[in-house]
Amino acid sequence: MRSYEVKNRTNVDEIKSLRLITAIKTPYLPDGRFDLEAYDALVNMQIEDGVEGVIVGGTTGEGQLMSWDEHIMLIGHTVNCFGGSVKVIGNTGSNSTREAIHATEQGFAVGMHAALHINPYYGKTSLEGLISHFESVLPMGPTIIYNVPSRTGQDIPPRVIHRVADNPNLAGVKECVGNDRVEQYTSNGVIVWSGNDDQAHDSRWDYGGTGVISVTSNLVPGLMRELMFEGKNPSLNSKLMPLIEWLFHEPNPIGLNTALAQLGVVRPVFRLPYVPLPLAKRVEFVNIVKDLGRENFIGEKDVKVLNDDEFVLIDRY
Amino acid sequence: MRSYEVKNRTNVDEIKSLRLITAIKTPYLPDGRFDLEAYDALVNMQIEDGVEGVIVGGTTGEGQLMSWDEHIMLIGHTVNCFGGSVKVIGNTGSNSTREAIHATEQGFAVGMHAALHINPYYGKTSLEGLISHFESVLPMGPTIIYNVPSRTGQDIPPRVIHRVADNPNLAGVKECVGNDRVEQYTSNGVIVWSGNDDQAHDSRWDYGGTGVISVTSNLVPGLMRELMFEGKNPSLNSKLMPLIEWLFHEPNPIGLNTALAQLGVVRPVFRLPYVPLPLAKRVEFVNIVKDLGRENFIGEKDVKVLNDDEFVLIDRY
Amino acid sequence: MRSYEVKNRTNVDEIKSLRLITAIKTPYLPDGRFDLEAYDALVNMQIEDGVEGVIVGGTTGEGQLMSWDEHIMLIGHTVNCFGGSVKVIGNTGSNSTREAIHATEQGFAVGMHAALHINPYYGKTSLEGLISHFESVLPMGPTIIYNVPSRTGQDIPPRVIHRVADNPNLAGVKECVGNDRVEQYTSNGVIVWSGNDDQAHDSRWDYGGTGVISVTSNLVPGLMRELMFEGKNPSLNSKLMPLIEWLFHEPNPIGLNTALAQLGVVRPVFRLPYVPLPLAKRVEFVNIVKDLGRENFIGEKDVKVLNDDEFVLIDRY
Amino acid sequence: MRSYEVKNRTNVDEIKSLRLITAIKTPYLPDGRFDLEAYDALVNMQIEDGVEGVIVGGTTGEGQLMSWDEHIMLIGHTVNCFGGSVKVIGNTGSNSTREAIHATEQGFAVGMHAALHINPYYGKTSLEGLISHFESVLPMGPTIIYNVPSRTGQDIPPRVIHRVADNPNLAGVKECVGNDRVEQYTSNGVIVWSGNDDQAHDSRWDYGGTGVISVTSNLVPGLMRELMFEGKNPSLNSKLMPLIEWLFHEPNPIGLNTALAQLGVVRPVFRLPYVPLPLAKRVEFVNIVKDLGRENFIGEKDVKVLNDDEFVLIDRY
Repeated sequence: MRSYEVKNRTNVDEIKSLRLITAIKTPYLPDGRFDLEAYDALVNMQIEDGVEGVIVGGTTGEGQLMSWDEHIMLIGHTVNCFGGSVKVIGNTGSNSTREAIHATEQGFAVGMHAALHINPYYGKTSLEGLISHFESVLPMGPTIIYNVPSRTGQDIPPRVIHRVADNPNLAGVKECVGNDRVEQYTSNGVIVWSGNDDQAHDSRWDYGGTGVISVTSNLVPGLMRELMFEGKNPSLNSKLMPLIEWLFHEPNPIGLNTALAQLGVVRPVFRLPYVPLPLAKRVEFVNIVKDLGRENFIGEKDVKVLNDDEFVLIDRY
Repeated sequence: MRSYEVKNRTNVDEIKSLRLITAIKTPYLPDGRFDLEAYDALVNMQIEDGVEGVIVGGTTGEGQLMSWDEHIMLIGHTVNCFGGSVKVIGNTGSNSTREAIHATEQGFAVGMHAALHINPYYGKTSLEGLISHFESVLPMGPTIIYNVPSRTGQDIPPRVIHRVADNPNLAGVKECVGNDRVEQYTSNGVIVWSGNDDQAHDSRWDYGGTGVISVTSNLVPGLMRELMFEGKNPSLNSKLMPLIEWLFHEPNPIGLNTALAQLGVVRPVFRLPYVPLPLAKRVEFVNIVKDLGRENFIGEKDVKVLNDDEFVLIDRY
Repeated sequence: MRSYEVKNRTNVDEIKSLRLITAIKTPYLPDGRFDLEAYDALVNMQIEDGVEGVIVGGTTGEGQLMSWDEHIMLIGHTVNCFGGSVKVIGNTGSNSTREAIHATEQGFAVGMHAALHINPYYGKTSLEGLISHFESVLPMGPTIIYNVPSRTGQDIPPRVIHRVADNPNLAGVKECVGNDRVEQYTSNGVIVWSGNDDQAHDSRWDYGGTGVISVTSNLVPGLMRELMFEGKNPSLNSKLMPLIEWLFHEPNPIGLNTALAQLGVVRPVFRLPYVPLPLAKRVEFVNIVKDLGRENFIGEKDVKVLNDDEFVLIDRY
Repeated sequence: MRSYEVKNRTNVDEIKSLRLITAIKTPYLPDGRFDLEAYDALVNMQIEDGVEGVIVGGTTGEGQLMSWDEHIMLIGHTVNCFGGSVKVIGNTGSNSTREAIHATEQGFAVGMHAALHINPYYGKTSLEGLISHFESVLPMGPTIIYNVPSRTGQDIPPRVIHRVADNPNLAGVKECVGNDRVEQYTSNGVIVWSGNDDQAHDSRWDYGGTGVISVTSNLVPGLMRELMFEGKNPSLNSKLMPLIEWLFHEPNPIGLNTALAQLGVVRPVFRLPYVPLPLAKRVEFVNIVKDLGRENFIGEKDVKVLNDDEFVLIDRY
């Protein structure tokens, strides 16, 4: 099919070798549009601290709150500005096969290096339906499949992955079910990135995982780099746990959004249905930053608690 | 806010009194567009057999596979053709608050009688976020809130419902968590429709439920009418169980789509990621129809097994 | 083709007999969204004063500044609220055949009684292309073709109309080229509405025209009714000329938008690229209203000049 | 305003110095989607033959038949693949100020080097409206304003250009009104590109024009390069006239689309409302190619007449 001829010059092996990928935050202007200047600064800091890839418009980046034209624009923008320094992985998945096909075609057309594909959340489908869904998009370019049943309401079982693994474009799986599942794949030659920051260290060093697609690396990219590259380090892993627990106390990216605003690297603007963490949790974050060391976090401003009225919540944008 | 002035002339009490609402199927032409002629025939049969309301573009009607303009068009079309005979409840919910606001405004503008609102599936949010989300749309008109954690990955706990229940537009809850939860609401004056066909009878007659928002009633509207209106009837309920189990063997609406095609009332066209049930299950359906009686099902053609190659699967439309 | 089966229950003869159709204004809220309450009031006043049809989202109604979903929503809304009292003619034309097909399908699906179709402005095409364009949409329902070369950059010559006139759905032509052209059609059995308010009287009474699709009737529907229904009336026609000249001094709907704001029936909100007429022209309008009689204009408030800073200009909405 | 901070690293002087810009054709697959492989080949040939810039999605490239997401994708794709070798000028203009703002923001975000802006065709506006329209987009990056009254129905008079010329982002004007108008600008320091291939030579060498934004250069880029770069050449200019006249016999891009299909460099697929030139004109083109020399045209296949049934006309895509 001609649409599958959309060019992608990235070798799937380049994707397979990435150890630290950040599910990058999308910052907003006070009217709810993208704050591209802040975004560019965030991506820059990621690159400087050794992050090798970014997921654009993932659940962390709030792809679910974007119109598709915004989403593809952000992928194209990231490629255009940073595509030489970092791998750009567009979250062009959808619970609608049509949307996934359209977005993935467009994403590769504007130069993304790989696609992230979720199974059809909410609407769900049968295992045969899952396979048809993934087979509709795999021919287009390097692909990571994302399994997160706590969001989608449906586990992607290994037999589905094994059915589509014949396609040379399958780079691997972003897996959130746990390290036993990780091992089930890695022992069979399937590349896995942990989708859980609290399990990423063990996944990488004990279960054959290749690396992590991380939320926490938005905040402490250097430490996550150390965790993934410089050998087993349970001490660092333990030191990161309070931050990780704080981040996922409420559904991601609520914690991350709050934290980045407190660090002064993004405006304190939320697109609904996300709202900031309450004051008590914000105070906790200030303490976490002090404990881990401000210098390990991105940005240079003092970390602040912020008042409730400093946050802007947007429902139309 | 002016947007909240969008007119709706339907009294919320008219919604609260509905006992049988069908989550209506959306049929397709071979190129994947809506088959409005078949749709109109389906809605007609529903009305003739005593169904009082339809959910347009629910998960059963595959709202998740529609573009928003298609979705609003279908709501407007249903109002225009059938709004005098049946309550039209638009599934204008979304995991994006912006989308939910926009679609709900448009849905009420084209005359829908009530909105169905889901919590933000997949992206999820905090309880405060849930409340903000629902409060963004409740002022616009009569509203049913839909709780289905097996799809959304997140339960709406009763305290969220109680927080928003002050709004006079809250008609009630479509609840899929079970009849204990139903009773928790009904004993506190909150109207509930069962979202599980297998529990609807007991919900209605033993747990204070008002009625059902049904998938099964697409097929056997008259029997579902009997079940909801004519008193406790465990015998009829039991007779329906094999059909209901068959329908939900795979994620809905896979079973329903297959069944309606086999009954000859819709073309055998599937929008991906949905694919038909396999041959063995289709044979089962033919037997179920015989057992329950062809005359209890909609349509007048003989029920068929259909060959695999009679189904059309569409990925671009 | 199945799409052509979209239902329309309006007989084309009902469209052919309309003498007074208003190209209705779309009023806005201060954030640029539709002000449906003001819109409904405008349509109501039209109906009360004897207008028989409205063009929804014409150039006067600024269809060119709408997204298609807004546009179809407004058509559906008008049908839903007023479809029993006035013929709703959706301007579902476009310079893109795809868009025209999609919008026309949707417009008929939500109940519009007829479509208005323009030739492909700006992009233009050959005469064979024009014919293909119109033949793509004519099968869907009653259709008025609109010729306004001063906007489109291309005249629709009579031979194109005669080529498509075989289609029973062609209700007639909205013609702006002048009354000689009108006569060319009417002497050959083609129904014509004048698209020029200054020529409408003569078109109707001297050149065989059926009626007018009017901008001026937004302001003085009763007088336009008199002009179209109650016999030749050069005196009334002359009395209206200063108003008509004032209205079209700048490209329509700049004058109309300004006038309706001055009459207090819509908020003084403009979507760019439209800006209000300058102060001197607004003073002129106050005098025109006095000369013609405030009671002949819609609304009940005193006509005002308005200050420049009372107008709101919107670029994002 | 923050949106104006969208980055563009192209100096406006780089745009001002371009002499040969092609309004590049958009080729299609048989289902009406973009044929990116053919597109890339076309752009490659342009670059090889000395073209310095391309207009993406101009009227020639049928931007008017694209959805905005397709349009922005094509801009991003062109930047991503060829942005280092050719200036990418996105036609992000619209008759809707909102659309123009949105598209221009997105176009610069994905890396386009300059924007082409038309005045509001079809809807038209007052001179003050024109100025507001252009002032809404000029702050975003280098801009060429396009005047083509035969398409828009409204001339942009020099006083409008002079009013907005203070903005340092105004690179210049693409002017179709004629060489007297060109001179009016060039004698006042405004950069002008001829928008008429038949006048481009004289514009360049006799009226102070900087260069041409050309349709003809799609076919004979090398000859157009010669015409713009290598001194006055009335003989070459005359030799090109039969081709140019043939190309513009019907509204552009009908001739160009037909010619490129005959040269075998694009599939013979037309999006309606465009249809191919008739057989007799196609025979003429074969002769024109022979007269000018096949080697001066792009592509390497023999030029063909093509049968009517070899063309594919698409109305839904």
